[in-house]
Amino acid sequence: MAKVLTAQADDFPRWYQDVVAKAEMADNGPVRGTMVIRPYGYSIWERMQAEMDARIKAAGAENAYFPLFIPESYLRREAEHVEGFSPELAVVTHGGGKELDEPVVVRPTSETMVGEYMAKWVQSYRDLPLLLNLWNNVVRWELRTRLFLRTTEFLWQEGHTAHATREDARSYAELILHEVYEDFMVNVLAIPVLVGPKTVAERFPGAINTLTCEAMMRDGKALQMGTSHELGTNFAKAFDITYSDADGATQYCWTTSWGSTTRMVGGLIMAHGDDDGLVVPPALAPIQAVVLVVKDEGGTGERAAALAGELSAAGVRTRLDDRVGQTFGRRVTDWELKGVPVRVEIGPRDLAADAATLVRRDTGSKEQVPLGALAGRVEKLVADVQQDILADARSRRDDNIVDASGIREAAEASRTGFARLPWRLVRGEGETRLAADGVTVRCLQRPDGSLPGSEDEDDLVAFVARAY
Amino acid sequence: MAKVLTAQADDFPRWYQDVVAKAEMADNGPVRGTMVIRPYGYSIWERMQAEMDARIKAAGAENAYFPLFIPESYLRREAEHVEGFSPELAVVTHGGGKELDEPVVVRPTSETMVGEYMAKWVQSYRDLPLLLNLWNNVVRWELRTRLFLRTTEFLWQEGHTAHATREDARSYAELILHEVYEDFMVNVLAIPVLVGPKTVAERFPGAINTLTCEAMMRDGKALQMGTSHELGTNFAKAFDITYSDADGATQYCWTTSWGSTTRMVGGLIMAHGDDDGLVVPPALAPIQAVVLVVKDEGGTGERAAALAGELSAAGVRTRLDDRVGQTFGRRVTDWELKGVPVRVEIGPRDLAADAATLVRRDTGSKEQVPLGALAGRVEKLVADVQQDILADARSRRDDNIVDASGIREAAEASRTGFARLPWRLVRGEGETRLAADGVTVRCLQRPDGSLPGSEDEDDLVAFVARAY
Repeated sequence: MAKVLTAQADDFPRWYQDVVAKAEMADNGPVRGTMVIRPYGYSIWERMQAEMDARIKAAGAENAYFPLFIPESYLRREAEHVEGFSPELAVVTHGGGKELDEPVVVRPTSETMVGEYMAKWVQSYRDLPLLLNLWNNVVRWELRTRLFLRTTEFLWQEGHTAHATREDARSYAELILHEVYEDFMVNVLAIPVLVGPKTVAERFPGAINTLTCEAMMRDGKALQMGTSHELGTNFAKAFDITYSDADGATQYCWTTSWGSTTRMVGGLIMAHGDDDGLVVPPALAPIQAVVLVVKDEGGTGERAAALAGELSAAGVRTRLDDRVGQTFGRRVTDWELKGVPVRVEIGPRDLAADAATLVRRDTGSKEQVPLGALAGRVEKLVADVQQDILADARSRRDDNIVDASGIREAAEASRTGFARLPWRLVRGEGETRLAADGVTVRCLQRPDGSLPGSEDEDDLVAFVARAY
Repeated sequence: MAKVLTAQADDFPRWYQDVVAKAEMADNGPVRGTMVIRPYGYSIWERMQAEMDARIKAAGAENAYFPLFIPESYLRREAEHVEGFSPELAVVTHGGGKELDEPVVVRPTSETMVGEYMAKWVQSYRDLPLLLNLWNNVVRWELRTRLFLRTTEFLWQEGHTAHATREDARSYAELILHEVYEDFMVNVLAIPVLVGPKTVAERFPGAINTLTCEAMMRDGKALQMGTSHELGTNFAKAFDITYSDADGATQYCWTTSWGSTTRMVGGLIMAHGDDDGLVVPPALAPIQAVVLVVKDEGGTGERAAALAGELSAAGVRTRLDDRVGQTFGRRVTDWELKGVPVRVEIGPRDLAADAATLVRRDTGSKEQVPLGALAGRVEKLVADVQQDILADARSRRDDNIVDASGIREAAEASRTGFARLPWRLVRGEGETRLAADGVTVRCLQRPDGSLPGSEDEDDLVAFVARAY
């Protein structure tokens, strides 16, 4: 049988395109670089949103909404910020049939807009910290686009907070990094991200510190999955976000911002997918188990429907596939493409043996399970598969990190994975030399993996790679 | 004590503005007609979304995402549609620092974009019905704007479906009207909407039938809360959405679209609010009960926190207010403004009596309840208040519908409420005469309240009113 997908080993980017199309995740939009997210792709994004949103709320932030259109003048108030985003702006010049007095930009991110309102809402130290999160769409006019990974318009959450002190801002940016992003990525997406600060060269425009989560894709390249920025008092000064402290003195606020996007869907595909399609970890999966009716004979359909109901009642997100008008093989291929963690196959022969066949998507392993024990077994599998996918991704990642002793060796290792080397060998000229080879520093860490206080600390380690 | 809000009787529009500001629902955005939705306003919208989304999914539709930017040429393909929306479009002419070859419009609604993709995805009758729903933001460059009610950018859901037959499309448009919109508005928002078709003059541009939900605000004006449209084969012909039927013949699809927006937040405010602020029905309320510590003496704070925990455990959405640094009166005013259905007040004196004081927001009535019975009593209250707010809104509405025997009487009655009169008296010239007085037909109904098959049926009743 002809393979549905290009093999990863033959052409990884082509494999990615194939999966996105064949698993019905997304289509290209009509305007260059835009994206139509199809129902299956969107159901994965909805699950990501729900899991992230719960963590964001647990971190104390409240959701709000800010306008799509930003006056051009707002962006110009923070010098680095406007320089960073100007080349990517979409500009509305006409509204209601008339030319606008001041053109407005479609938000590429909302620091400037939020800054303007924080300045109104924050008066005293009692109003701090102010912790906001926005779920919305943003536009950045990118030259080279790829579905989910880099699109002109994308969906995301952007957090914006204001604090009384630098320490409080820093600890909140770290809280978001660890408790929201890293926790979600490791425990739900099953992607063992490396976390740490970016180098000065790689910071967000306007930030004094950018913390990042970096994942390794199956082709050894890095994907930046989410970032949390300390903005210092840069935006506070540009937008006059001040508070009066306990002594009545006026102080600038310290602000943060942090974001994660539909790009994570691309990360999910490339971190776990194989030559048969997506592999979705159960904690994320919109459908954790699909019950397939092999043939609808001898009451199989009815029994399968009852089993699907049992699994749902046991808390497993279950879908019944009784489309017996289509061939069984084609349906199996479709569920493999979509990466559903567990298949429960039930045909007349299974029914005669009072059993069903369970198939794991991640390993392909099969087992016959008595119908009476099915729900319990599937629940167990759902938990096991989650652990195994994470363990697998972790060992794949660790196997593809090379300890390099110099720039040339690091660049070489970046052809197939990440390289780890002392930051002092990279800093300054090394970063430029790596860049010439298309390799960037993904993040810095202390030797024990913890966050450095600054990039001046001794013994820091740099992770370098090619990146999406 | 000076009243926080303008009285409704003195100046209803000013009262509305005051509530939106003082209850911290929303602020004006910097670009004319745009809106910043503050956390409390957004938490109400999130609850609306959750309740609507569950009903939309129960109706079989799947969520997806379509791009913000639509090529101008798409809109021109359906004549009535482009005529209806052209005056309101925002146009992007520049992207990435360059002038675009073809300007793109910011979506005012997505029928054209979705039509283009439905044409790709639908091949055979087996692909039908195709049931999609989108949660997103749209832009319509409005001249006169008011927060939530009419803003340049608003948030909404837009459903888009394709069907094999006119009958199937019609019955789905009706299903959405009744099972999603009417059910949500009546049973969650506690707003007794009138449902029925619009007249030809009031239809959505491109529709062959527009079904609407019309609510009465406390000033007697109508607010259109949600609409469900049969689009016939108009968009199918413009975008070539066809399918091959069971005999292999090519047929046009029949499509529908349906939408409801952040305008519902404005409707909530004006349907139930009073001179003390919002009145939020418990089924919707993000906070159903607030536990207020009157003074933190003799362990009151601790006991109040425990009670709040008990209420949460009983499934009541509860907030603890222990901000004893602010005066009790000011905090009470704040929770009244925000319309929280039940206040649980607990001070040292209550504690000494092993009781708490319960206050209903809708009626202002107070009662002392023993602490041991508190959770049960609050649960009961939450259910009662929901019923009472609906009954109240229903009798207020019914009291303000006048049976009119002619156009002049109907126009007169529309100064303070709705008028109901035979459609045959309105049809044609009557609709024009009413329009001259700023009065419109809100919807048609059969005498028993059911949906007419067409506006040519005998004995139809027209509801007319001034509207937002």
